[in-house]
Amino acid sequence: MSTPAIAITMGDAAGIGPEIIADAFRQDPQTMRRCFVAGDVSAMRRAAQVAARAGLAWPVLQLESPDEVLNLPPACIPVLQIGEPLGLVAYGQVDARAGEFAGRCVTWAADAALAGEIAALVTAPIHKEALSAAGAPYNSFPGHTELLQARAALAQGVDVSRVPVRMMLANEALRTVLVSIHVSLRAAIEAVTYDNVLQTLAITRAALRRVLGREPKMAVAGLNPHAGEGGLFGAEELEVICPAVEAARLEGADVHGPIAPDTVFMRARDGADHPGEFDVVVAMYHDQGLIPVKYLGVEQGVNVTLGLPLIRTSPDHGTAFDIAGKGIASPHSLLEAVRVAKRMAGGA
Amino acid sequence: MSTPAIAITMGDAAGIGPEIIADAFRQDPQTMRRCFVAGDVSAMRRAAQVAARAGLAWPVLQLESPDEVLNLPPACIPVLQIGEPLGLVAYGQVDARAGEFAGRCVTWAADAALAGEIAALVTAPIHKEALSAAGAPYNSFPGHTELLQARAALAQGVDVSRVPVRMMLANEALRTVLVSIHVSLRAAIEAVTYDNVLQTLAITRAALRRVLGREPKMAVAGLNPHAGEGGLFGAEELEVICPAVEAARLEGADVHGPIAPDTVFMRARDGADHPGEFDVVVAMYHDQGLIPVKYLGVEQGVNVTLGLPLIRTSPDHGTAFDIAGKGIASPHSLLEAVRVAKRMAGGA
Repeated sequence: MSTPAIAITMGDAAGIGPEIIADAFRQDPQTMRRCFVAGDVSAMRRAAQVAARAGLAWPVLQLESPDEVLNLPPACIPVLQIGEPLGLVAYGQVDARAGEFAGRCVTWAADAALAGEIAALVTAPIHKEALSAAGAPYNSFPGHTELLQARAALAQGVDVSRVPVRMMLANEALRTVLVSIHVSLRAAIEAVTYDNVLQTLAITRAALRRVLGREPKMAVAGLNPHAGEGGLFGAEELEVICPAVEAARLEGADVHGPIAPDTVFMRARDGADHPGEFDVVVAMYHDQGLIPVKYLGVEQGVNVTLGLPLIRTSPDHGTAFDIAGKGIASPHSLLEAVRVAKRMAGGA
Repeated sequence: MSTPAIAITMGDAAGIGPEIIADAFRQDPQTMRRCFVAGDVSAMRRAAQVAARAGLAWPVLQLESPDEVLNLPPACIPVLQIGEPLGLVAYGQVDARAGEFAGRCVTWAADAALAGEIAALVTAPIHKEALSAAGAPYNSFPGHTELLQARAALAQGVDVSRVPVRMMLANEALRTVLVSIHVSLRAAIEAVTYDNVLQTLAITRAALRRVLGREPKMAVAGLNPHAGEGGLFGAEELEVICPAVEAARLEGADVHGPIAPDTVFMRARDGADHPGEFDVVVAMYHDQGLIPVKYLGVEQGVNVTLGLPLIRTSPDHGTAFDIAGKGIASPHSLLEAVRVAKRMAGGA
């Protein structure tokens, strides 16, 4: 790897992104070593004060380049200014300027990662409406993933359809990768195709081999109750999921299922007294995987985009406009996202 | 209530039902006070020996009527013989005689509950294939619920469609009631209708008012990711669920939602350090509710049938043919089912 630097994109300045980043530097400098903020110096100064609560704010140190993270003084918040300064935005309100700036930071970090100038990016939350209000090119991206996908396709000179990605959600006890994400449940059922399931298995396998350093033990959830109970409650398991699992197995994957959705996550979960049976569960739709990952709380949840030619993680929460600027948002999920990014980058 | 007796139906004699009942009497006599087995004396004698492991088996005491539970000697397993003796069945094998006998016990207990001769029934697991192999009338019932529904309809002289029921799953941290159960996910989406959602809310409200002694605070899960995000990912929330919630509210219900499925269960869960925000979550389909209820383990899970003119609970597991007769099955879920039945009957 050409550089050990990890960029934390600032996210929407009207949300909790800047303050949880500042708080993460204060609360866990060891985890944040080699990290810098790809953002706006003034917004991060304000955030440093919010994160300080009644105490003394940490100073913001403006960087000239990512490589400077190797030689930083202690107790500062290193920020690389991305383009022109943002200007003041109000907390908790959709602002096109904040949306544009957030999109700009992610674009910069994606290109830097694709060029090998940074080892990974960890993205603080953006606000979908603000991104949309920012106009072209950002209004064509529902979220981070699609923006990153577009930059990767551009860098590789291929159509975006040639850069398939999947979302992995992980916490300390469970990993799950989703066949589809932000579509209606009806559309999600239609997305349970042989190609999509097999592709999800291939992307999951490749990513977890890198993370774990060995062949991952993968479980596949069924789509229907009891995984269809032999075709009684739906045919997708027999007609679609089983053939895809069989094909992945022929490619050498250690894959099990389809397993009844209401027990596969329980079986995969690492408990205090027993390790889970599987390293990851491939879930057939958004809520199937996210309900168990979030059930015990979102504090430790991390979102990892699999399939891209770069490493990207993010905390598993949004901009939380309702509490932005109040100094009460928790940096735990962001810190966990940094830890996961470092493990994936292999330079922890 | 005319009687405090609670019947534990024996379940399939080839499964773990008899031995977990016998074990429950041994392990927690206080919880099993006023309970008796509706079953077969010989099968329960065998189960008493299995449950005793290396120790001395508790004797089986044959009752003449349910009322005798008020005056029992300690350290015995009270059994009311239901019809002719069953005869020996092998553990772990589908046996039409065991299926017929299990169905007979449930029919007896349902009729006894409807007649006010017992306060509640707790059903040990039956085996669907054995019930089917038993022939008429049992082969027309996929499971306990449909059999109980049929007996209730018969007793009331109405069509079975006039006895709508819903399944509630509960453990120490979470209660969830399902709009539909054993149908494909496609069919489950079709079952999310105004009438079904409103009926689920009405049944849930009535049952929990009885259990809690106050108006329950109910949450309704959305069907789609993010509860449809304002119609972006599916229209069912706006077109179906919201109007049903509004109608329930006009009837006086304390109902919230639709809430994003991936956070509503987390919010409703009673944690060690915080009570849940809601008393119950109405889930739109089987796995949406069962994934979170089972996530931390099925030991404490209890199944409650709501909507019937009788009280019925059951452990949240099956016949476990693979371990039947080995003395290793846990009675915890059955004991919890007895506790819930007693609380619902109001005579704990």
